[in-house]
Amino acid sequence: MIQIFITGGTIDKYYNELNGELIFQGTQLPAMLKQAHCTAEMDIQQLMLKDSLEMTKADRDEIKQHCIATEAQQIVITHGTDTMVDTAKHLAASIADKTIVLVGAMIPYAIKQSDALFNLGCAVTAVQLLPAGVYITMNGKVFAWDKVRKDKQAGEFVTLIV
Amino acid sequence: MIQIFITGGTIDKYYNELNGELIFQGTQLPAMLKQAHCTAEMDIQQLMLKDSLEMTKADRDEIKQHCIATEAQQIVITHGTDTMVDTAKHLAASIADKTIVLVGAMIPYAIKQSDALFNLGCAVTAVQLLPAGVYITMNGKVFAWDKVRKDKQAGEFVTLIV
Amino acid sequence: MIQIFITGGTIDKYYNELNGELIFQGTQLPAMLKQAHCTAEMDIQQLMLKDSLEMTKADRDEIKQHCIATEAQQIVITHGTDTMVDTAKHLAASIADKTIVLVGAMIPYAIKQSDALFNLGCAVTAVQLLPAGVYITMNGKVFAWDKVRKDKQAGEFVTLIV
Amino acid sequence: MIQIFITGGTIDKYYNELNGELIFQGTQLPAMLKQAHCTAEMDIQQLMLKDSLEMTKADRDEIKQHCIATEAQQIVITHGTDTMVDTAKHLAASIADKTIVLVGAMIPYAIKQSDALFNLGCAVTAVQLLPAGVYITMNGKVFAWDKVRKDKQAGEFVTLIV
Repeated sequence: MIQIFITGGTIDKYYNELNGELIFQGTQLPAMLKQAHCTAEMDIQQLMLKDSLEMTKADRDEIKQHCIATEAQQIVITHGTDTMVDTAKHLAASIADKTIVLVGAMIPYAIKQSDALFNLGCAVTAVQLLPAGVYITMNGKVFAWDKVRKDKQAGEFVTLIV
Repeated sequence: MIQIFITGGTIDKYYNELNGELIFQGTQLPAMLKQAHCTAEMDIQQLMLKDSLEMTKADRDEIKQHCIATEAQQIVITHGTDTMVDTAKHLAASIADKTIVLVGAMIPYAIKQSDALFNLGCAVTAVQLLPAGVYITMNGKVFAWDKVRKDKQAGEFVTLIV
Repeated sequence: MIQIFITGGTIDKYYNELNGELIFQGTQLPAMLKQAHCTAEMDIQQLMLKDSLEMTKADRDEIKQHCIATEAQQIVITHGTDTMVDTAKHLAASIADKTIVLVGAMIPYAIKQSDALFNLGCAVTAVQLLPAGVYITMNGKVFAWDKVRKDKQAGEFVTLIV
Repeated sequence: MIQIFITGGTIDKYYNELNGELIFQGTQLPAMLKQAHCTAEMDIQQLMLKDSLEMTKADRDEIKQHCIATEAQQIVITHGTDTMVDTAKHLAASIADKTIVLVGAMIPYAIKQSDALFNLGCAVTAVQLLPAGVYITMNGKVFAWDKVRKDKQAGEFVTLIV
């Protein structure tokens, strides 16, 4: 069984036609998984709906507690891209016995040219195949949590050169 | 480097507005990978554009020869779903030292509710993580070539119970 | 009040993922009008769901009877493009006191690059502005029923040069 | 010949994946008209790309001058919805001999459930059928410039009750 934790981020942004802003309005993960024809056994739980730039240490602790508490060994976390690496690091500091994959999108699922479905396919597959550890799947690549950074100019995740 | 071989199938079907039929009109894989924001190094080669029901042994031999000839160790093959398992079996009989993942879609990329991007994310990820062997990624699951069948009534891939 | 009669045609074709064919599976007009944010008062009635190449004289008579029977003065008919002109002619022979606009699509609403919504906007507007008579709105143009033909090679409606 | 003047507004907003904001990045009208299969003769000219809340009297004067200068008798103006009525009033005060239709969208063309194509179909049709005057086409309705207001709570255009 795969545990999916929703935390917000671009992937779940929705267009509010009354004020022209991109907002959160519930998660679209069930709609994505339906479109994906995904039959893998999953439990979806929405922890929060936040821009990752607004995520606090308390939010990361909450995510961590849920990762520890769930019986699932395989966990996918949807997350904003800007601080995805920070949350991955926070989880890796405390959890060593589960496979945790963080994923998001550069373009919301609600927008025509979204990368959300592709990225979700990457995460759902990676979480089933990887050993315990914390990972990020973006841009068709799989990164260990301590080998990745977001290149904000290019808008893509790249291998961290230490 | 990931080698992608295009063979056709539903994933690449295109709507022909002059006669109302779904046809092949070149592959849409480059467009899909662009939408995916995929930066993994790839080489895309179109071998054929066929309905998998029309694939012959000669076609499967051609796919096999290309899998053997490419220098890549990681190969993704886009393929129609109806005989995907047959081609997987054909490849597994001859190739043991490369990771080959077959993938397709139940709904063409050109159609609004397509599963193509999700499936492609699954395949691109699986091929990077799996040991040598022949696999199918559909419905968010990873199947070994000899543990899978397509349930045509349900329109989904399921584990083969021997 | 605008009366909408559904008769089928490309505009309402739906992808059947079990056999890979484009079929009818109920009308998508309510979904289209919702996406359109249309607040014009309408009544939608599905008369049939047919390829226009399969429409018979009996079908055209049925459409005609409904046009006569409805209390609405403004009628939009969704229709396959191949014989749209024939049905328009059939209606014009019997009905002179209502504004009837036939409309369809070259690409189904279910497909990404569909012209369906644009065409529907044309028809809904034309039916409110035109005097009594039978018309076709396609390709952003308004044609009187006896001044139009479909150019099947080009896939577009053109003015009939007599 | 239909003259199309682009002024910006929601219809032309584009998602900037580097900062997560909806911005202007050139007009998408040519792409819309191509998807629409529109063959009506048109000339498209981009006057500005602005949120309508940021439009000044100078902007409205510029739009007016272009409406006067064009040889076309039929003019469609794409415009943000918030001050569309103001611009319509401004044009009506000076121009009486041309048919001018203002149109926009509640949801950008770049977003999946956009009303843009439908609205554009309404405007392109209305401009061909209406006598000289200034009009707005939104929500599947045609409004004279002095008989309409935007209900911002409901997000729709309604008849102005004087």
